[in-house]
Amino acid sequence: MAADDVSAAYPVDARNRVRRRHDRGHYDHATVHRLLDAACLGHVAYVVDGWPYCTPTLFWRQDTRLYWHGSSASRMLRTLADGAPACLTVTHFDSLVLARCGFNHSADYRSVMAFGTARLLTSPEAKRRALVMMVDRLFPGRTAQLRASTTREIRATSVISMTIERASAKIRAKGVADEEEDYALPIHAERLPIHTVIGTPEPCPRSLPGVARPANLGGYRPGRALETALAEAHAAAFAGPPDGAETAYAEA
Amino acid sequence: MAADDVSAAYPVDARNRVRRRHDRGHYDHATVHRLLDAACLGHVAYVVDGWPYCTPTLFWRQDTRLYWHGSSASRMLRTLADGAPACLTVTHFDSLVLARCGFNHSADYRSVMAFGTARLLTSPEAKRRALVMMVDRLFPGRTAQLRASTTREIRATSVISMTIERASAKIRAKGVADEEEDYALPIHAERLPIHTVIGTPEPCPRSLPGVARPANLGGYRPGRALETALAEAHAAAFAGPPDGAETAYAEA
Repeated sequence: MAADDVSAAYPVDARNRVRRRHDRGHYDHATVHRLLDAACLGHVAYVVDGWPYCTPTLFWRQDTRLYWHGSSASRMLRTLADGAPACLTVTHFDSLVLARCGFNHSADYRSVMAFGTARLLTSPEAKRRALVMMVDRLFPGRTAQLRASTTREIRATSVISMTIERASAKIRAKGVADEEEDYALPIHAERLPIHTVIGTPEPCPRSLPGVARPANLGGYRPGRALETALAEAHAAAFAGPPDGAETAYAEA
Repeated sequence: MAADDVSAAYPVDARNRVRRRHDRGHYDHATVHRLLDAACLGHVAYVVDGWPYCTPTLFWRQDTRLYWHGSSASRMLRTLADGAPACLTVTHFDSLVLARCGFNHSADYRSVMAFGTARLLTSPEAKRRALVMMVDRLFPGRTAQLRASTTREIRATSVISMTIERASAKIRAKGVADEEEDYALPIHAERLPIHTVIGTPEPCPRSLPGVARPANLGGYRPGRALETALAEAHAAAFAGPPDGAETAYAEA
């Protein structure tokens, strides 16, 4: 994939401008994409008959598009089939912050809200390529190690694609921040870090003898930060071929 | 708080029925509340001018109500001030599942979608009590250890309350589940656990000498699962007084 233009940014308007604590807002591609690529779980908001729904989903980014999937039977996918506004949000929860007064209790976090019109991929070829990246984005090269997908399986899976039209990142990373006069009080305050980490892999109990864990899963090591492994896998999955490939499975 | 009636369940209709993989759906209060109380970060979907927004927020549950907060300046709070439909979703992300074909790659998770009409708390007394629980739900007894909130601080904070009208929990907890014939293939498959854990507390660098970490933070120990500490704190925070207190700060 072509490297991000470091000066590129998402346009800002009333929809995505960070209003509360606007000093925490970022709109540049580099910041937004870095936070997206360090995650695989997002929450998608969409509207059905005027009612809001918030659905967790595995997702991935390629260029300025987001992709996610689900069964063709799900409520979300039927709603988005014709193209519908959506907001996909990713949150890295970094700490709880215990201050000297209730008002300054807080949390450190890094989040992205991405807005656009979500659409079903319909071309079988675009869908096939997306289903490869759905796996290979997490585990680069894995699809080539698997039993090939059947036509029935590809038909039973739907893939949603959304070009990011607006996005904002919001970052709080300052730990305890009390009123100046409150530092003189004999009250304990702390930043309590939260870590999302990889555990010990549990091989399938029905694995055949002699089948070893492939080297391409080596980044997923016990105790490692999940976001580090995800960011590394994303970079490897989209490392090449260099030019134009980033839109190879995007439909016109 | 009165113990949950173990037979109680949220009503099921078109809005909250789990459609995809409906064998994963649960509607009983016990399951829904257990998953909510083991979390403090939720994602709220709401609608502004027909556009969906998905906002991360700290929240807590008391009885069949959810509460969350934010600055009076935020987009979400201004939208919800008059009462607006919302969906608050909580997701516990438990594993990535690597199967023998792309189609069966999956994740173990436990999620709740809670639907209702979100409203601003307006009574100063209801708000004051909610602001106590916002802190004490995480750190039981902490408010009594803090500098008291000022009128200005209470005014600058808004609290949203939403009675849960519909809810569904969805749980996948089965690890690798391949097609029967695929188990004969020499392909590595595994469940890769994901853990969200507490790190080493970082005392405020400006803490006064002799100020020790209070005993009521003892549940937040390095390496412990965040959800265990949160569930324990929630149970302690709402342990007493026994009767009727659970709605003490809910407005009529």
